[in-house]
Amino acid sequence: MHEYVDGTVRRHEDRLATEEPLEVRCGWPGTPPYRVAVTMRTPGHDFELAAGFLFAERTLQGSDSLHTVAYCTDEILLPQQEHNVVTVSLRSSPPRVPARRHDGVSASSSACGVCGTQSIDDVLALIEVHDPVAVHPPVAPAILHGLPDRLREEQRVFARTGGLHAAGLFTVDGEPLVVREDIGRHNAVDKVVGARILAGSDPSAPVLAVSGRIGFEIVQKAVAAGVGVLAAVGAPSSLAVDLAERAGLCVVGFLRRDRFVTYSAAERIGV
Amino acid sequence: MHEYVDGTVRRHEDRLATEEPLEVRCGWPGTPPYRVAVTMRTPGHDFELAAGFLFAERTLQGSDSLHTVAYCTDEILLPQQEHNVVTVSLRSSPPRVPARRHDGVSASSSACGVCGTQSIDDVLALIEVHDPVAVHPPVAPAILHGLPDRLREEQRVFARTGGLHAAGLFTVDGEPLVVREDIGRHNAVDKVVGARILAGSDPSAPVLAVSGRIGFEIVQKAVAAGVGVLAAVGAPSSLAVDLAERAGLCVVGFLRRDRFVTYSAAERIGV
Repeated sequence: MHEYVDGTVRRHEDRLATEEPLEVRCGWPGTPPYRVAVTMRTPGHDFELAAGFLFAERTLQGSDSLHTVAYCTDEILLPQQEHNVVTVSLRSSPPRVPARRHDGVSASSSACGVCGTQSIDDVLALIEVHDPVAVHPPVAPAILHGLPDRLREEQRVFARTGGLHAAGLFTVDGEPLVVREDIGRHNAVDKVVGARILAGSDPSAPVLAVSGRIGFEIVQKAVAAGVGVLAAVGAPSSLAVDLAERAGLCVVGFLRRDRFVTYSAAERIGV
Repeated sequence: MHEYVDGTVRRHEDRLATEEPLEVRCGWPGTPPYRVAVTMRTPGHDFELAAGFLFAERTLQGSDSLHTVAYCTDEILLPQQEHNVVTVSLRSSPPRVPARRHDGVSASSSACGVCGTQSIDDVLALIEVHDPVAVHPPVAPAILHGLPDRLREEQRVFARTGGLHAAGLFTVDGEPLVVREDIGRHNAVDKVVGARILAGSDPSAPVLAVSGRIGFEIVQKAVAAGVGVLAAVGAPSSLAVDLAERAGLCVVGFLRRDRFVTYSAAERIGV
């Protein structure tokens, strides 16, 4: 790479955030594993990503319904493909059978529906929404203000590549339960949720903090995980806030050391 | 919304970036339109988004092969759904027939393949790669340094919502050909490419500037459009740079007023 600074050019090596496709396969007794998704991700914590993705889709209901997660060992795979296919085996057929994904399917999003209200209804019909106020205690503003720094402390790659998003589940005291990073915001969230599931834990946590902005699908994943407060450095979208309001999830945007904004369920913020 | 600043809480209204699902349908003589994609997007320039998306997928080959683009007027649509379904009608059957997209398909990405090299091969097999050096003149560093400001000048929503990405096609002199914004980075790129196609122009341009980071799919869209330099405020991924090198596209990251970094085809930068 060449760096241009104030008119001078320097040549040096740079570290880039790695991006590789991951194919997720899912199967259960009587149904051989088949391809359900292909996502561009940063390699690492692939089993967590696959489990978290299927959990948000309600194909995987929790650690109890998980049989095994493994890299595919098909003999037809080339060496460079071996660690890009993860197979999730369920103990029994899932409540929501995922569609088979063929090569060349052009789908920009896992969200369906042709209007926002319908999209929200679809998510809420799929996910059993708990009352976060009853499950998690309110979170104090001082705790929230400290989360961006905690997220960065836990990130080891960002400082070197500048190209990765982070997501973290935190306790009500702001202690990290798990922090993961990925080139994709959605993948980082799937990884933290999947990490809790693979550890045999409930992915529900008082706070989910993310480095980017909050769109509809990030809220969908937070609601599926049973999170109390979803806090982001960036801004939320209109539809993200609409879904959060319906689900009782507190959405916090523009999170800084001295400032943040709540967009829904402000009663989830303590004093 | 409530704003927490230095321990005080204020209540006021905020503008949020709008997010709504858009369903893209595609048809041609003998084939009634069917759903090929659903994407979460910021409403506005929907025809451009649909055309640009299908162009990057190589379903739409250019303005000559486009018959009509229209909002769907099915009687079964509810009023709030009417402007969330866009139908693209082609003059003849496309070289690449898009897969039908069913409700509930879980596909995180339009990219396929189970290793990065294969993903790159798939894109290059699909897209006729021109030699950008022959098509576009080199771009001077001073022009690149000015692009983030030009992009912001053309954005009207960002300052108010803080939640939108921008993309713009620019001449070799840094003059904007078209600038669009969207809550999704990929959508913003599809919109600028689609805008050129709907205007009857070749989407090829010396520079495509984007506000975010550069992943594999952004490079795929830039290569499909025949862009010379892809410049971003953020960092590129490893696979994005690999594809750009193979296609002869110059990738510029960390674009600032006094600095930028080239990752591929540095001969595309003038003096």
